[in-house]
Amino acid sequence: MDYYEKALEMHEKWKGKLSTELKMTLENKEDLSIAYTPGVAEPCKQISKNKKDVYKYSWKGNVVAIVSDGSAVLGLGNIGPHGAMPVMEGKAVLFKHFGGVNAVPLCINSQDTEEIVNFCKLLEPSFGGINLEDISAPRCVEIERRLKEELNIPVFHDDQHGTAIVTIAALINSLKIVKKKAEEITVIVSGVGAAGSSIIKMLIEFEVKNIYAFGRKGIIRKSLNEDYDFLKKEIALITNRDDLDLTLKEAMKNADVFIGVSSPKVIDYDMVKSMNKDSIVLAMANPEPEIEYDEAIRAGVRIMCTGRSDYPNQVNNVLAFPGLFKGALEIGATKITEGMKMAAAYGIASLIRDEELNEDYVIPSPFDKRVAEIVAEKVRERAVEERVIR
Amino acid sequence: MDYYEKALEMHEKWKGKLSTELKMTLENKEDLSIAYTPGVAEPCKQISKNKKDVYKYSWKGNVVAIVSDGSAVLGLGNIGPHGAMPVMEGKAVLFKHFGGVNAVPLCINSQDTEEIVNFCKLLEPSFGGINLEDISAPRCVEIERRLKEELNIPVFHDDQHGTAIVTIAALINSLKIVKKKAEEITVIVSGVGAAGSSIIKMLIEFEVKNIYAFGRKGIIRKSLNEDYDFLKKEIALITNRDDLDLTLKEAMKNADVFIGVSSPKVIDYDMVKSMNKDSIVLAMANPEPEIEYDEAIRAGVRIMCTGRSDYPNQVNNVLAFPGLFKGALEIGATKITEGMKMAAAYGIASLIRDEELNEDYVIPSPFDKRVAEIVAEKVRERAVEERVIR
Repeated sequence: MDYYEKALEMHEKWKGKLSTELKMTLENKEDLSIAYTPGVAEPCKQISKNKKDVYKYSWKGNVVAIVSDGSAVLGLGNIGPHGAMPVMEGKAVLFKHFGGVNAVPLCINSQDTEEIVNFCKLLEPSFGGINLEDISAPRCVEIERRLKEELNIPVFHDDQHGTAIVTIAALINSLKIVKKKAEEITVIVSGVGAAGSSIIKMLIEFEVKNIYAFGRKGIIRKSLNEDYDFLKKEIALITNRDDLDLTLKEAMKNADVFIGVSSPKVIDYDMVKSMNKDSIVLAMANPEPEIEYDEAIRAGVRIMCTGRSDYPNQVNNVLAFPGLFKGALEIGATKITEGMKMAAAYGIASLIRDEELNEDYVIPSPFDKRVAEIVAEKVRERAVEERVIR
Repeated sequence: MDYYEKALEMHEKWKGKLSTELKMTLENKEDLSIAYTPGVAEPCKQISKNKKDVYKYSWKGNVVAIVSDGSAVLGLGNIGPHGAMPVMEGKAVLFKHFGGVNAVPLCINSQDTEEIVNFCKLLEPSFGGINLEDISAPRCVEIERRLKEELNIPVFHDDQHGTAIVTIAALINSLKIVKKKAEEITVIVSGVGAAGSSIIKMLIEFEVKNIYAFGRKGIIRKSLNEDYDFLKKEIALITNRDDLDLTLKEAMKNADVFIGVSSPKVIDYDMVKSMNKDSIVLAMANPEPEIEYDEAIRAGVRIMCTGRSDYPNQVNNVLAFPGLFKGALEIGATKITEGMKMAAAYGIASLIRDEELNEDYVIPSPFDKRVAEIVAEKVRERAVEERVIR
């Protein structure tokens, strides 16, 4: 039985992967009088006097809303909010299991940017953070930006930043192995949607100077600006400094790093072979990567990462989001900053000691129990440094 | 230490009375591949082909949203959505403990009818039902009606109907004791807000003919129609048939039943004493009833019910809502009908056998474990009869 059949069977058995549970017993009148009326009136009154006390007397401080409109679900595309439910429940399960963070899947009946923004703003009293999920680009970027401006709780679009954080973590460790500096390398990014744009911004933050980005219609160039949506315009400003008109094949020649968040088979044996010595490939299209693992190895790649769990170096965003929200919620952060994302990447990378580091081990396993803790710790420290605490 | 102090201490310790938990272990790659990617894609695909499969493969079939704007919280009034959180969490805890139904507190940052209706409509893919809570009248009635029309999942405003169902249950059993028929009795209802209006409608359904309703400004009369909001207009149409101009004191004389969902001390010793033989008083203002328990007894009341747990016959809506939603969700009901509410009332009443029935035992205890099951059963049966199943 393959995963798909087994998953269908188990999902039918579970009828929901999640449940809500109570933290107390309710066996007698006294229990009821404390957890509910009349006792509950007292914390209510305290909060109504001082709104911040909602963190003290309710679960707001440790619960995240997972909001999706079902417009870009996994590799399945726009399957709508009902179809997205099993994914969002799965995400909620990961939040709890890996980060100890409660989470509620909210798949909503609208794909209108304004309505989604409004919906999330209405949620603020009830949740400590909002994780946007599987909303198609470029709307997802606009929605996240609007909410970051208008809300004082952490808002995070995992499809953008989750993959980006783990990609940078992998790159930090890979560069240690090949002894190259970020400032000197040339990086090709294939895919300029949610994940690609965030990766590019983090690469800049990481001091990478030479980046060439490719979308479905080829290389991103400043001179083509008028054809672009706002997201591609931003990418054009920070990549391809000399406005070169290169094919992907041309750009790959002598590149140091290829990062794919696009489609299966966009690069081939010859292209990897033409890369600079000690090449690094992160081919994260899922389930079929931009180049098959074995083919990349045959073509001489030094370090190969994919999104798959059946090869070494899995770039899995479960390494990032549970610890990130755990840390942000614990410290009472009002937002997730660029600095916190970078701190999370360094935290993940730091778990592999220099003597352990090798071509097949640049990223810790999703089951490494230290991950969420170190990410949370780095995020807390950074939030304090940046003073983004309520 | 009283309940208030103890509740404050415990709420601070709990930091939320609720948690989300997973139903499976996630110890290895295979677990992850079934609960999340890649396996999860299969139930998603099935649902995207047939929307109803969301009930088969997600928790939608057993989770309720508890939606409040914090405008009418307990006896505390308009304390806002943050202040309402401990109550809604408490409600979620009761849903799970008494009905086995998962529930999520959603206190939202708006008290605008249109925005609340829209918010709830957006929730439909994620929840099997919506329990509206602590929204002030008459908005709560409008919001509930709109949602009942526009959604195909059960929507229920507990402040209206929860109390009404348990009140009717108490009345069914009380009338057995005093051997009076619904058609013959005169009932005074004090309070024409959310609960009062629903009680009056259920009394009519229960075949009570003579009802006099009192609001803050006195008796409700058809001839005063123009001063009324839509809710009082409806009440005027079905009560006080002869458009009498009575004071509460005058109306109480020779009345059989007094039902109070209003304010402390609106009736006194003399008024209860002036009631018909075998009088029944349900004084449910909380925590201070419309007349103190002992005073009503001294005044000769035959059967006395309050909202309090420290006297016999507690009218507690926890007897109704957990079983009601449990039944509605189990059978796949698309709405909560008047018939289902009445069936729930009869179900609650039926738990006390004739030989057990006495003046101090007309309503089962909230801790009677049979309650949710019998209510669910009656609701399921009625939903089948009325064919309101998806």
